[in-house]
Amino acid sequence: MAVELEELKEKLRALTGKLLAYNQAMGVMYYDAATGAPRGGAEDRGRTYAVLSEVIYGLQTGEEAGALLTALNERKDELDVVTRRQVTELYRDYERTKKIPMEEYVAYQVLLNEADTVWHRAKEENDWPAFEPYMEKIVAFNRKLAGWLEPEKKPYGALLDQYERGLTMEKLDEFFGVLKERLVPLILRIAREGRQPKDIFAGKRFPAEQQRQLSDWLMAAIGIDREYCSIRETEHPFTTGWSKHDVRITTHYHEEDPLSSLYSVVHEGGHALYELNVSDELQGTVLAGGASMSIHECQSRFFENIIGRSRGFVHNLLPELRRLFPAQMEGVTEEDLYRAANVSRPSLIRTEADELTYSLHVLLRYELEKQLIDGSLAVRDLPGAWNAKMKEYLGLDVPDDRRGVLQDSHWSGGSIGYFPSYALGSAYGAQLLALMKETVDVDAVIASGDLAPIRAWLTERVWSKGSLYDPLEIFEQAAGAPFDPAYYTDYLTKKYSELYGF
Amino acid sequence: MAVELEELKEKLRALTGKLLAYNQAMGVMYYDAATGAPRGGAEDRGRTYAVLSEVIYGLQTGEEAGALLTALNERKDELDVVTRRQVTELYRDYERTKKIPMEEYVAYQVLLNEADTVWHRAKEENDWPAFEPYMEKIVAFNRKLAGWLEPEKKPYGALLDQYERGLTMEKLDEFFGVLKERLVPLILRIAREGRQPKDIFAGKRFPAEQQRQLSDWLMAAIGIDREYCSIRETEHPFTTGWSKHDVRITTHYHEEDPLSSLYSVVHEGGHALYELNVSDELQGTVLAGGASMSIHECQSRFFENIIGRSRGFVHNLLPELRRLFPAQMEGVTEEDLYRAANVSRPSLIRTEADELTYSLHVLLRYELEKQLIDGSLAVRDLPGAWNAKMKEYLGLDVPDDRRGVLQDSHWSGGSIGYFPSYALGSAYGAQLLALMKETVDVDAVIASGDLAPIRAWLTERVWSKGSLYDPLEIFEQAAGAPFDPAYYTDYLTKKYSELYGF
Repeated sequence: MAVELEELKEKLRALTGKLLAYNQAMGVMYYDAATGAPRGGAEDRGRTYAVLSEVIYGLQTGEEAGALLTALNERKDELDVVTRRQVTELYRDYERTKKIPMEEYVAYQVLLNEADTVWHRAKEENDWPAFEPYMEKIVAFNRKLAGWLEPEKKPYGALLDQYERGLTMEKLDEFFGVLKERLVPLILRIAREGRQPKDIFAGKRFPAEQQRQLSDWLMAAIGIDREYCSIRETEHPFTTGWSKHDVRITTHYHEEDPLSSLYSVVHEGGHALYELNVSDELQGTVLAGGASMSIHECQSRFFENIIGRSRGFVHNLLPELRRLFPAQMEGVTEEDLYRAANVSRPSLIRTEADELTYSLHVLLRYELEKQLIDGSLAVRDLPGAWNAKMKEYLGLDVPDDRRGVLQDSHWSGGSIGYFPSYALGSAYGAQLLALMKETVDVDAVIASGDLAPIRAWLTERVWSKGSLYDPLEIFEQAAGAPFDPAYYTDYLTKKYSELYGF
Repeated sequence: MAVELEELKEKLRALTGKLLAYNQAMGVMYYDAATGAPRGGAEDRGRTYAVLSEVIYGLQTGEEAGALLTALNERKDELDVVTRRQVTELYRDYERTKKIPMEEYVAYQVLLNEADTVWHRAKEENDWPAFEPYMEKIVAFNRKLAGWLEPEKKPYGALLDQYERGLTMEKLDEFFGVLKERLVPLILRIAREGRQPKDIFAGKRFPAEQQRQLSDWLMAAIGIDREYCSIRETEHPFTTGWSKHDVRITTHYHEEDPLSSLYSVVHEGGHALYELNVSDELQGTVLAGGASMSIHECQSRFFENIIGRSRGFVHNLLPELRRLFPAQMEGVTEEDLYRAANVSRPSLIRTEADELTYSLHVLLRYELEKQLIDGSLAVRDLPGAWNAKMKEYLGLDVPDDRRGVLQDSHWSGGSIGYFPSYALGSAYGAQLLALMKETVDVDAVIASGDLAPIRAWLTERVWSKGSLYDPLEIFEQAAGAPFDPAYYTDYLTKKYSELYGF
């Protein structure tokens, strides 16, 4: 019997090896496509995706995988914790993916490849009509997908569960309710009474070449080992990776605003640190990536906001900015930079929104997605609905779709139900910060310029665990308590009341 | 019967589609690895290569391919010319690849991935001993490979045939004999009596950022459509691609010498133009790439040398250099730049060698490769043998292995028998130039800044044909005559006698 189990485990390793290989091949192609591949190659690349994704579908749902995973599942009690979790995850994928017809699965991969290209161009050229038919198809697929995966659930709930196991619309409605109730008054008060700091970057130009050097500095400052992580440029920054030995971050340089790429790099750097610090024993398994989108966003937004926009970080950043941009930074004080990094002001672009208004951007997307999926909003009406909500929540007129409905890459990438993770991750981060402060002098560590104690805390409690547990379990293990959004609203209220002198 | 043939052709399309998909996936990963992937990912990437190359081996040599190709081969006469050629090529691959044991084939792909990483580091750190064991294994594999492929031939001859079908050691010995005989006296005379132009770049710095803009200008100047071709940076410039819709060139910026990257871009651009102009009817088949290395090098060296170093090209280039590097180019005349682009002086680095001494760099590698493969030279003695030949042929002392035996990426990439193509391609180009001049006013076209007539000539005679014929057939169809190296030696003699006023 023992021999047979070893054989099964050996087969599991072989299956995993293949899945990881195809995953890397497709992942590298996606990354390459988003970081400078010639645009004309999209159609050929689509054909390659079709071939590879058909193989992946076969590996995940084939009889061989079915027999192997069923056999291992029956002997779960004999397995070590890592193998057991792998079997659970793969078996779940097996059962879920099997519910999706193969032709639909493959056609969707091809559609997403095209949609990505069309979206890039549509965003550049402010051309929603070009993207609309792709969005129609993506929404239609996601509605079908929800039905295949969990026909008993409300469709949007089934989609949420893909990104965040166990997350429900009820929980989210409650969570966003708390945010709305506690944050909107503060946002309105700042808009009414807040004295905004001077715009220290107005009329200045920050060349991409120096910004590239700044990115190198930032990656070093947060503790990224470049042996295992590289950076490239893209339209919409993202992070990807295939193991702790190969992680990629991306950014986009705006020459009129150095903070845009700066905080993108720190944000994506947070994602990268998570992947780079998963424990060695999980490498080569399907558990070597982050546990979920919210746990991932918890890391990235922790680095971007809690660390990156802190007084200590700004203090260490200023000399580097002065070195790279001596003329542009002349006369800019530490207080000026700190205020510039922490302005709260309703704005059009989510990724550049301040911490305080950020969750309203997410709320808007959450509400629109729910409506698209339950059928109460037609895709053709999406730009109008977007603009109306921007007016309602942030008081802004959207001047064009580039800065409106076309701004994010998530929908063109097929991700519907992903956005809520951003707000949730931010809220998780505030709760972890409170706990971390009990044993780590966070402000002093940041001011010291060596974040090792913070990385060690997060490695132990979150990063090393990869996908060994469900996301909510990982959060609760780390926080030692259930999730409570009050940490987040308290953190924001305190920070922004101080900033605006209330 | 007709129905059955259609079925066979459909199966051929499916097989081809899969081969192209895996080829692209592995190709993009290779390209990514050479253009900024984190170094630490090499081992994981090797595992992925192993999985994918095992599949490729299976596709090429499996029973399914065997039965299909045999059936089609038997009905060759019923096939259109494109399908027939595809069957011939795939059947040849099938028969050849089958001779290589699968484990060896896969292990070699993994070895090359590692070797590439080790070579990059070894070159950077001038550390031949680190690379030596990889070179040992690569040479050992190639000796075995020659035995598997063509046991009746001398091993090095079998390797040559991989890159250049029909090329033999006898032909090469004769070719290099002519070059040696006619060029060495001129090289020696220039060394003895030639008045060298002033070094217009000495002590100046040409920032990479501006050189990047120059690359954009160069790609436009030679007529590359950026919709289908991109550029990135790497250690050792190369070109790759997967169809006429997706071609990639690479370069390396040396801030002390703008001509290095400049002529790399024009050289790689020549490769790219070839791939970008293969006819539409060959797309999606295994014939969509260039016919061979020598035909490829014929295009790249035609653009680099015959076009790129011409008076007309230099005339158009100078204003752009002045715009990008106003201070550095102050006082540099057109004649200065033309002379700088055409200095002939024995030098250490092949890729930066002038046209005249270039073929001696290739000769050196050809002779060393022959000895490595016939066993008369041990790998551990390779650096010494290299340095001795550099002294003998070019009168130079090699100061370190970085600028000696470690300079090229070909051996670490597993290519033994490839180098002769460079010299052959250059000689092909000179013969085509003579013919082109009968109908195209080449100098006037170059001076006009619009190379369309030259591209049209090459597209019709060479580029559009992809791999539809054997390389020597393609050359002879284009040249309308057998190959004659005298065109090359005449071209060089005339050009350099004029330059040095003999």
